[in-house]
Amino acid sequence: MSPAGAPARFSLNQETIRQWSLPELVAGCSAAGVGSVGLWRDPVERFGVRETAKLVAGAGLRVSSLCRGGFFTAADPDGRAAALEDNRRAVEEAAELGADALVLVSGGLPDGDRDLAGARRRIVDILGDLVPYAAGHGVRLGIEPLHPMYAADRCVVSTLGQALDIAEEFPATRVGVVVDSYHLWWDERLPSEVRRAGEAGRIVSVQVADWVTPLPEGVLLGRGQLGDGSIDLRAFRELTDSAGYRGPVEVEIFHPGLWARDGEEVLREVIDRYREHVA
Amino acid sequence: MSPAGAPARFSLNQETIRQWSLPELVAGCSAAGVGSVGLWRDPVERFGVRETAKLVAGAGLRVSSLCRGGFFTAADPDGRAAALEDNRRAVEEAAELGADALVLVSGGLPDGDRDLAGARRRIVDILGDLVPYAAGHGVRLGIEPLHPMYAADRCVVSTLGQALDIAEEFPATRVGVVVDSYHLWWDERLPSEVRRAGEAGRIVSVQVADWVTPLPEGVLLGRGQLGDGSIDLRAFRELTDSAGYRGPVEVEIFHPGLWARDGEEVLREVIDRYREHVA
Repeated sequence: MSPAGAPARFSLNQETIRQWSLPELVAGCSAAGVGSVGLWRDPVERFGVRETAKLVAGAGLRVSSLCRGGFFTAADPDGRAAALEDNRRAVEEAAELGADALVLVSGGLPDGDRDLAGARRRIVDILGDLVPYAAGHGVRLGIEPLHPMYAADRCVVSTLGQALDIAEEFPATRVGVVVDSYHLWWDERLPSEVRRAGEAGRIVSVQVADWVTPLPEGVLLGRGQLGDGSIDLRAFRELTDSAGYRGPVEVEIFHPGLWARDGEEVLREVIDRYREHVA
Repeated sequence: MSPAGAPARFSLNQETIRQWSLPELVAGCSAAGVGSVGLWRDPVERFGVRETAKLVAGAGLRVSSLCRGGFFTAADPDGRAAALEDNRRAVEEAAELGADALVLVSGGLPDGDRDLAGARRRIVDILGDLVPYAAGHGVRLGIEPLHPMYAADRCVVSTLGQALDIAEEFPATRVGVVVDSYHLWWDERLPSEVRRAGEAGRIVSVQVADWVTPLPEGVLLGRGQLGDGSIDLRAFRELTDSAGYRGPVEVEIFHPGLWARDGEEVLREVIDRYREHVA
């Protein structure tokens, strides 16, 4: 670690500085003493999965997560088969990268479908096929609840409690949950559900971003730099610590303002903010 | 009721056709056989509270709700006093209009404040002063949980369960809850919480709008026409029925697309959609 190295558990999710190529990401993280990165399938596939694995391992970086599998909610057999096939590829990629977890975003409602409960049941059903495949590859799955504002079009799993209900259909060594401040901060049940997740050994990833308003159109790219918003991020991190989580804390901010700036400058700022508001 | 009259429990919230003046609203509702309207303080104050009460009563219209009081979360004494004063005026207005309920939107986090639990506690505190005043005026208060996407800047009460926890600090004849499909549809606990609210006699208002994506910037004006989105509105209404609610079902849609059209045409469409998707 460099003298100005990032805190030990700090992890940089690749999308936070998406202007960086994979070699720039690895070089930038190495220079800043960052020990872990969260990767995304699209840029990894473009660069090559094997090449990425080699690059990352060569730099001694840990892959704290691979985003993402999921989108499990198709109601028709073809859609289900396509989702399963795509998720098997994601498992293989996570295995090759040695990722701590493959993050699963469950998917929203199919077009014209208004049956949230049915969509949630289909997630358990398809995981019944995916979990053995992931186990065979030594890959742990992490179900990520997304903010309820994404329930219709992106993820019908809206709370940590729901994610745990699904995860608990499978062994804790195989399926856990992703605990992201941006999605969960508003929920007064969060403390009890984080304890429940920790006691069961099911926290596979912790991610942080801040909540800033007004939300942008489409509500995808408005996550806030640490400290710019409404979330008590230190209390959030301490909550996961007190539940027994000791792994990387991944900074995952989707914000065009960060993408328009120099990557090294953004990383310095993110690390400074992490020290001030999270560590 | 006219031959093509609206269904008996149909209520039109004024903001759904905000291009209408109060006389236009009353005339339009009367012509369409609508028996109830939900009113908003701003247009009522501009027209005059007494004049509105006279106009509405003269047409035989029931006022299913007055929106809105609340914004209770100021942490400083001056802010608290101002909120209490404004809410006393809202109570007086609701009394003069004979509204079934005064809707309370609790308020978000004060600037720079990250303590959601503290803000939620302050709501109970200020209601301790407001409830006796409302009781003295014969006005029933309705705590409205808003979607979690508004937790930071508009309403720290994000679920029906939280709203009930607050309401239950006070007698059911004085404080109830507002059950709005747009805010609550995603919550798997909704059926049990609606039953809880119904058994306690605390459902003071039921509102409907559909959930459509993508959400617009600021996420305020993107509510969907009934049937255009992801919510099973009939199941939602039946849920409130089965919990014992027998009052008006208020259509409250904030959407610039509806505001740009002819009011009578919008009302006809809303009533048709209500028959098709809600009644």
